[in-house]
Amino acid sequence: MARMLALVLGESTHVSTDHPPPTRLPGEALVRVRVSGVCDTDLQLARGYMGFSGVPGHEFVGDVVACDDAAWLGKRVVADINAGCGACIECTTGRGHHCATRTVLGIVRRSGAFAELLAVPERCLVAVPDGLEDDRAVFAEPLAAALHVLDELPGGAKPKRALVLGDGKLGQLIVRALASQGVETTLVGRHAHKLALAASAGVETFLEAELPASRRGAELVVEATGSEGGLAHALAIVAPRGTVVLKTTVAAKLTIDLAPLVIHEVRLVGSRCGDMDRAVDILARGAVNPLPLVEARYPLERANEALAHAGRRGALKVLIDAPVVRGG
Amino acid sequence: MARMLALVLGESTHVSTDHPPPTRLPGEALVRVRVSGVCDTDLQLARGYMGFSGVPGHEFVGDVVACDDAAWLGKRVVADINAGCGACIECTTGRGHHCATRTVLGIVRRSGAFAELLAVPERCLVAVPDGLEDDRAVFAEPLAAALHVLDELPGGAKPKRALVLGDGKLGQLIVRALASQGVETTLVGRHAHKLALAASAGVETFLEAELPASRRGAELVVEATGSEGGLAHALAIVAPRGTVVLKTTVAAKLTIDLAPLVIHEVRLVGSRCGDMDRAVDILARGAVNPLPLVEARYPLERANEALAHAGRRGALKVLIDAPVVRGG
Repeated sequence: MARMLALVLGESTHVSTDHPPPTRLPGEALVRVRVSGVCDTDLQLARGYMGFSGVPGHEFVGDVVACDDAAWLGKRVVADINAGCGACIECTTGRGHHCATRTVLGIVRRSGAFAELLAVPERCLVAVPDGLEDDRAVFAEPLAAALHVLDELPGGAKPKRALVLGDGKLGQLIVRALASQGVETTLVGRHAHKLALAASAGVETFLEAELPASRRGAELVVEATGSEGGLAHALAIVAPRGTVVLKTTVAAKLTIDLAPLVIHEVRLVGSRCGDMDRAVDILARGAVNPLPLVEARYPLERANEALAHAGRRGALKVLIDAPVVRGG
Repeated sequence: MARMLALVLGESTHVSTDHPPPTRLPGEALVRVRVSGVCDTDLQLARGYMGFSGVPGHEFVGDVVACDDAAWLGKRVVADINAGCGACIECTTGRGHHCATRTVLGIVRRSGAFAELLAVPERCLVAVPDGLEDDRAVFAEPLAAALHVLDELPGGAKPKRALVLGDGKLGQLIVRALASQGVETTLVGRHAHKLALAASAGVETFLEAELPASRRGAELVVEATGSEGGLAHALAIVAPRGTVVLKTTVAAKLTIDLAPLVIHEVRLVGSRCGDMDRAVDILARGAVNPLPLVEARYPLERANEALAHAGRRGALKVLIDAPVVRGG
């Protein structure tokens, strides 16, 4: 393929029909994208976060169309978006997500998934089981990140009870992830219809103004509002020596009083990407059903509209359909 | 004693010769203060932090002059400053420092140590061994807090290497505490003469502008500058998935970009008070020598001058001598 269709960030955000396909390096797989999903990070990138230019997108499912290891050819896959060097101390001790020279699909020096084709190292690939539809598999990456919340507690302990702040698409996925692992989970939000959506998945919910005293003081609080006041609220309702997990990266500075953190000896932990195998397994078992979170879908030709839609206040997941394959 | 000498915070900060002595409740000990120490928290309280009024001061050594348990009578003591209720879930599970109804000596609803007399629960007392002079014993409380940094790592693991930011009295004590426990410790500061003071205690030091790349990326970074930029600097030099311990409470809000916390999945942990027995043991063994940190001392009659001195930019520890006992 000489040129491809892609959403491109640069001086402007636009769909190009003439974008160069990614170069597949040795050890990498070329993947034809089937479906991709829009994440708030994509919206941040479009606003200049991390100085990214090129093709964004890191939530996808697709088919391997070229690779070195023939076993992958033709396989339907998702992928760990962090491509570590494979050789440094981080990569060789199981912390490749923090390799200092890593690329990150659609975020750091690697062309992303809002395109017909992408390239990732073969070691990042995770096969999608036959029974798992594309529209569920495309949630593997955000679900992995949601489940990763559970890796942040001291000693890897599983909390008995968790409070999740924010009823948006991230919070919705996190409460489903936590509940699937047997954690008593409460979602706190500001939108009755979104709380109802979580309640339909079996999660306890409260409007922020109505959170009862009995639900405060959880050992785990997840801040997924992305709002200026979210962290302060999290610090106010976490148990002493409890853990607040910060899931959202914002492109702005935050003004906050950290005295409660010191007085109550709270742990504030940043949490990013998680284990893709675990996420695919949970999706394949049906333990988390992400389909009610899909709000809209757009063809790749209209990916800029997809981003605009995802940027609307309160939007849930927006998917992007890549063109149907015409003979590979 | 009908009335006593005390430093009193209220509408103004002043020394009173006519302050009512604390009431000793059942189970409490009345302690005649020998020496007390000024902490930055006292300076914050004097500026209105936590809305405190009354007698501040929480670093002290003194003699028990009245108590229920006769075994304590006449004993030279220091004390855990957190007086929990003794009955709640926090108190009965070893987390009494976080009892919701606790009083804290000289900080929360309990008259403090910048006075002739104070009262604390007997269960908070720690006996001072005969060989440990008053001027060392008075450091038990801040040293306990300094050592508590080591309780904040995941699973209680001891770090191999730590960076401490801030060459003030808190940082000076923390580097000595960490070094005494076998942690490779580096102090980063802005004052050559203070770095020299730490170097004389065997600690590696660097001026902030000269910190070499080889010393960045520590798994433990302790922020003890209390400055606006300290936390951002700590987040910039901690290893991915490392721990930043925040030791200072400031009476102001902080404006910070927390994206590095999320991207590098850093743990930010607030840390307050520590184990007094451990601190007394380390002082008694001479494993930490705090005496070089004493910059000045004032009689209790001039305690307001002691606070003013402690508030000077760059001041180290200021001690306050209570009046010598005239027959108990």
